[in-house]
Amino acid sequence: MELFVLILELIGTAAFAVSGAALGLRKQMDLFGVIILGVTTAVGGGVIRDIVLGSFPPAMFRDPKYALCAIAVSAILFLPRVHRTLARHRRGYHLALLISDSIGLGVFVVSGVRISLACAGKNLFLAVFVGTITGVGGGVIRDILAGDMPFILVRQVYACAAIAGAIACYLLWPLLGAWPAMLIGLALVIALRLAAAHYRWNLPRAEISSES
Amino acid sequence: MELFVLILELIGTAAFAVSGAALGLRKQMDLFGVIILGVTTAVGGGVIRDIVLGSFPPAMFRDPKYALCAIAVSAILFLPRVHRTLARHRRGYHLALLISDSIGLGVFVVSGVRISLACAGKNLFLAVFVGTITGVGGGVIRDILAGDMPFILVRQVYACAAIAGAIACYLLWPLLGAWPAMLIGLALVIALRLAAAHYRWNLPRAEISSES
Amino acid sequence: MELFVLILELIGTAAFAVSGAALGLRKQMDLFGVIILGVTTAVGGGVIRDIVLGSFPPAMFRDPKYALCAIAVSAILFLPRVHRTLARHRRGYHLALLISDSIGLGVFVVSGVRISLACAGKNLFLAVFVGTITGVGGGVIRDILAGDMPFILVRQVYACAAIAGAIACYLLWPLLGAWPAMLIGLALVIALRLAAAHYRWNLPRAEISSES
Repeated sequence: MELFVLILELIGTAAFAVSGAALGLRKQMDLFGVIILGVTTAVGGGVIRDIVLGSFPPAMFRDPKYALCAIAVSAILFLPRVHRTLARHRRGYHLALLISDSIGLGVFVVSGVRISLACAGKNLFLAVFVGTITGVGGGVIRDILAGDMPFILVRQVYACAAIAGAIACYLLWPLLGAWPAMLIGLALVIALRLAAAHYRWNLPRAEISSES
Repeated sequence: MELFVLILELIGTAAFAVSGAALGLRKQMDLFGVIILGVTTAVGGGVIRDIVLGSFPPAMFRDPKYALCAIAVSAILFLPRVHRTLARHRRGYHLALLISDSIGLGVFVVSGVRISLACAGKNLFLAVFVGTITGVGGGVIRDILAGDMPFILVRQVYACAAIAGAIACYLLWPLLGAWPAMLIGLALVIALRLAAAHYRWNLPRAEISSES
Repeated sequence: MELFVLILELIGTAAFAVSGAALGLRKQMDLFGVIILGVTTAVGGGVIRDIVLGSFPPAMFRDPKYALCAIAVSAILFLPRVHRTLARHRRGYHLALLISDSIGLGVFVVSGVRISLACAGKNLFLAVFVGTITGVGGGVIRDILAGDMPFILVRQVYACAAIAGAIACYLLWPLLGAWPAMLIGLALVIALRLAAAHYRWNLPRAEISSES
């Protein structure tokens, strides 16, 4: 079971690293910038989680497995042959990215809830915040570094899927035990994320308003 | 007296949430983005304060009253009828916003000074920094998330009012006791902030310079 | 020896403050904005370092020497006569800035490695990250605040010089002792930084790629 989670976490880390590195490539960054953006996207959420929970130094420094995985993935994506090949198979590439990104989001959210429970005890608000920020924080840092508006502020129900999964995981934890709660939370995040992408769900948006 | 501070803090939280949510509406964000920006603006300064003081998890997670207040205010502002009505009464809306924002700034500054003294003892530089960042930090995060230049870098004497109030509060604390020092600091911030807005005070600005 | 390091640190602090304040002047900020940007650039890396290491409150608040130095330098640069004079002597000004910036980068990197070893023991990944972020973190915050893409993502081998110096310092520490390791790390950062600027070294950059 631990091994299963580790594999899911590495898939998620790699998917997040690809989303960061791909943005760096689009912004014409050099090799170092692409790697930085890939690593930041992959581990940034976990660093914010550890800072909020007061757990120092953040886990990524105690166990560099994830950061090294993200560095390797970003460096591979930088190879001209690789990103040219991917560009030629856009549809499959995007689908693979969407699925692994959803897995990564789900895994990071439930692992955030687990760590919050372990570090700070029962606190619904804290656990949901920490779970959500573990999932979406890397993407927010990526967008700020790249000079874009953070995508969670303008797109889709991405963060809502994370919040729903975190709440489900937290509430089911005392009822069903750790693993069932985490699996259901994970499945819920992935299902909502994929459904939102497929059906193009969107939250309401205000009409152009003129105040202030 | 505690109740008085609580009411002022909730007024300030609501005013900061409105300033964040209104920016989100102007930037055409969806419901979630507007709420995130409202909450971030309202509680962001306190989170930075707690990180600098090493107080984990930050207070907003131990006492979600303020975050819930900010979520509710942002969601209400999102209702089309509400922001259309406010848009129709611009002058009164702006005046109410200015006054409650000034109260919020003042309350957050002096509460920041108080928490700094309680957590880290006498340290003028730390107390003034923590007080100021508690007051202006949320707005800085708001502007970075929304892709704007942080307003405290380009506008008015906003941050100077916060600094003056924090210094006054810190210096009067041992002379007059906690409450008088906080009240005078609060009044000073509000007075400077309102006067700066009314008389359009501005700090000197460099002429266009050509170096580097 | 301590005095020697102190002098180098103050030179680096002043150089970093100048780079922040000069950006604020170019962006037409007022006096307060210029000082904030100068101070943030000078001490921001150290604050990130202390947060990652869990050392609260960050050193800049326990020892305000560096922040005060940065405030003074930024305020002096703001004087019209000063920045006009500097603008007239562009070449010399840029050369002085480049050299002192390189010294600052090198000093902050090796002092970051030293503090990481003192706080968290032997951890190559942590020490190199902390050393590098101490050196480049202030510049990243400066660019985010000013609304620019962080320069380390798009320019030169700046961060690579920091990483190389941090690795050298860390690896030589147990072999040669603290001071020789720090001096060699410092010299390596300065040499790489100056060579990169002189020969316009650049890391490879991806051709415009079309994948999302």
